[in-house]
Amino acid sequence: MSVVVGNSDFRPLLNSPTAKITGVHESLLQECEKDIIWYRENFFGKPHDNYLALESTKGPLAISVILDGGVYKALVRSIEGSERLTVEGSAVYQSTHRKLFKLGPKVENLMSAFSSGIPARSLTLVKNPGLANELLSMEERQVIRSYKFGVAYCTAGQTTEAEMLSNRHESISPGYKAFLQFLGETIELRGWKGYRAGLDVSGTNQTGTHAVYTKWQGYEIMFHVATMLPYNEKDKQQLERKRHLGNDIVVIVYQDTDEPFQLSSISSHQNHILAFVKPEGEGYRFTCAVKQGVPAFIPEIPDPPVFGRDAVSRDFFLHTLVNGERASYKSTSFAPKISRTRSVLLCDVASKHLK
Amino acid sequence: MSVVVGNSDFRPLLNSPTAKITGVHESLLQECEKDIIWYRENFFGKPHDNYLALESTKGPLAISVILDGGVYKALVRSIEGSERLTVEGSAVYQSTHRKLFKLGPKVENLMSAFSSGIPARSLTLVKNPGLANELLSMEERQVIRSYKFGVAYCTAGQTTEAEMLSNRHESISPGYKAFLQFLGETIELRGWKGYRAGLDVSGTNQTGTHAVYTKWQGYEIMFHVATMLPYNEKDKQQLERKRHLGNDIVVIVYQDTDEPFQLSSISSHQNHILAFVKPEGEGYRFTCAVKQGVPAFIPEIPDPPVFGRDAVSRDFFLHTLVNGERASYKSTSFAPKISRTRSVLLCDVASKHLK
Repeated sequence: MSVVVGNSDFRPLLNSPTAKITGVHESLLQECEKDIIWYRENFFGKPHDNYLALESTKGPLAISVILDGGVYKALVRSIEGSERLTVEGSAVYQSTHRKLFKLGPKVENLMSAFSSGIPARSLTLVKNPGLANELLSMEERQVIRSYKFGVAYCTAGQTTEAEMLSNRHESISPGYKAFLQFLGETIELRGWKGYRAGLDVSGTNQTGTHAVYTKWQGYEIMFHVATMLPYNEKDKQQLERKRHLGNDIVVIVYQDTDEPFQLSSISSHQNHILAFVKPEGEGYRFTCAVKQGVPAFIPEIPDPPVFGRDAVSRDFFLHTLVNGERASYKSTSFAPKISRTRSVLLCDVASKHLK
Repeated sequence: MSVVVGNSDFRPLLNSPTAKITGVHESLLQECEKDIIWYRENFFGKPHDNYLALESTKGPLAISVILDGGVYKALVRSIEGSERLTVEGSAVYQSTHRKLFKLGPKVENLMSAFSSGIPARSLTLVKNPGLANELLSMEERQVIRSYKFGVAYCTAGQTTEAEMLSNRHESISPGYKAFLQFLGETIELRGWKGYRAGLDVSGTNQTGTHAVYTKWQGYEIMFHVATMLPYNEKDKQQLERKRHLGNDIVVIVYQDTDEPFQLSSISSHQNHILAFVKPEGEGYRFTCAVKQGVPAFIPEIPDPPVFGRDAVSRDFFLHTLVNGERASYKSTSFAPKISRTRSVLLCDVASKHLK
């Protein structure tokens, strides 16, 4: 085993005997991207109704409804996320009177047909033509197109967070160099125009001169490579490095040692996925330790958990990291923050139109 | 040199001494994707004017115009492509009378401010609320999200199209196997759910049992690997293979030989980019031969034209292939077809609304 759990909150993921190393086959779309597509394809630019609530038993709400070919479709945006709902027109109750005068169903009946939990009485129909655009850009602001992952190096005998941050770039092994190349491109930070992940690109090299970067499946990934960040002889904790890796949700630990890593040495509250990689033959042995509270995610890790240096293996590995980070957003550490962000965004829209 | 030009229409690209092997830094968005973004951000969901012409000196036209903060913006869609234009409101002529009654400029004056070539008199203002959606989906239909590239193998002494299609998969070299792995994932065609590039996925193995596939930067790429396609002992031309590779715009030729390839042996009219790859040390030497009429494209090929097997090299190579294919669309072989497609799409929209 390449890790020791001790009294830590991290647990290594179990390997799955049926899992395989594959490239990316399925969609990498985030939920908010699917919401955007659903709204664009079904509502936007067509006559539809938007209901807002600033305060309700479910908090602020923004609900879009359209009747499309006898079917009602709704996008229900709440602080928990968005739901894409569909219901047959015939399943929505309408009084004979409303049918006769083609008034459509009452909002209470419409909402209860979608879901029993929608507080219909708190909703206000808002007719402002700019609202559709605002709802769309609210979702757009939640799409994450860039990721920052920490990369630490453990040389012979090193087993702790402090040790993995204490190595000099001059003394890394050829195997680790090859691994950094496997991850991405070594780019010069001075004048860097892409995603900078908090690194200094002004040319004063406050965070080192280079970093490792890749554009993967359309996403930008910047790696905080500990040994490329400034080393401070006087600082045992290497705070300049910890400041970056300690704030990463995902940290890769390259183990150039057979000593198992002490998971309990991780002091960062932000780290949720620790991806341990150890050179093995022409490839890498992989152990993924996940903080308690992070839900399961794909791809599953095969048994033996070994991958090569080829494109498929790299896609598999980066896929694991990206999905691990996304799963972490749902943990108790981040879910309340994300919910709060949604609440602020929803309240902004609702208060503007309900004043 | 790994190729002989002879009397062929192909020319090897020159290497650039200043070019470097890099990953993907800039945007991979296609022009029609940029048009979609421009239209979505500036016009869609906001009150704006759409002008259509079914016949004009420029063929069918669809022009969207919006006045946004004192600036007129236009998206001019013609059979040649789309233009995103911006002009200061003050630069558009308006008579005193029109100013006084806030009528806005005449369409002739507005269009001539954007560009002298727009046949304003042929345009009709169309107020249909569904039109914006139709214009958007017209552009969406032109976005290309999947690519198919041929991959052929030349073993010792082979120098022609016929020879490169005549090899058995059982007798390929370990180096070529590694190259296929560099390209992507070997997937089973039976029941394949992704992009199939004309291959048989029904389970009857009409086009072999496996192919090489990758999802790269969000695009699907299927490789038509000649040696994985059925071999017919009785057919010298291997038509079952040529049927696929002969229809690919980009064909990769892996040279397990020092004999230069005879470019004049290429009989396909569809092939426009031939990417020759020869193993060299731990990497590959690359020669890109381009058919006359294909405009220049990035990334430039460095000198020496050698790349490794790492992620950056692979991004560089696939970037070259994708951009080579996109550049080929502008050649005389494809530009008229693409123009015709745009014409049909524009006429569909215009004739529906101008009848």
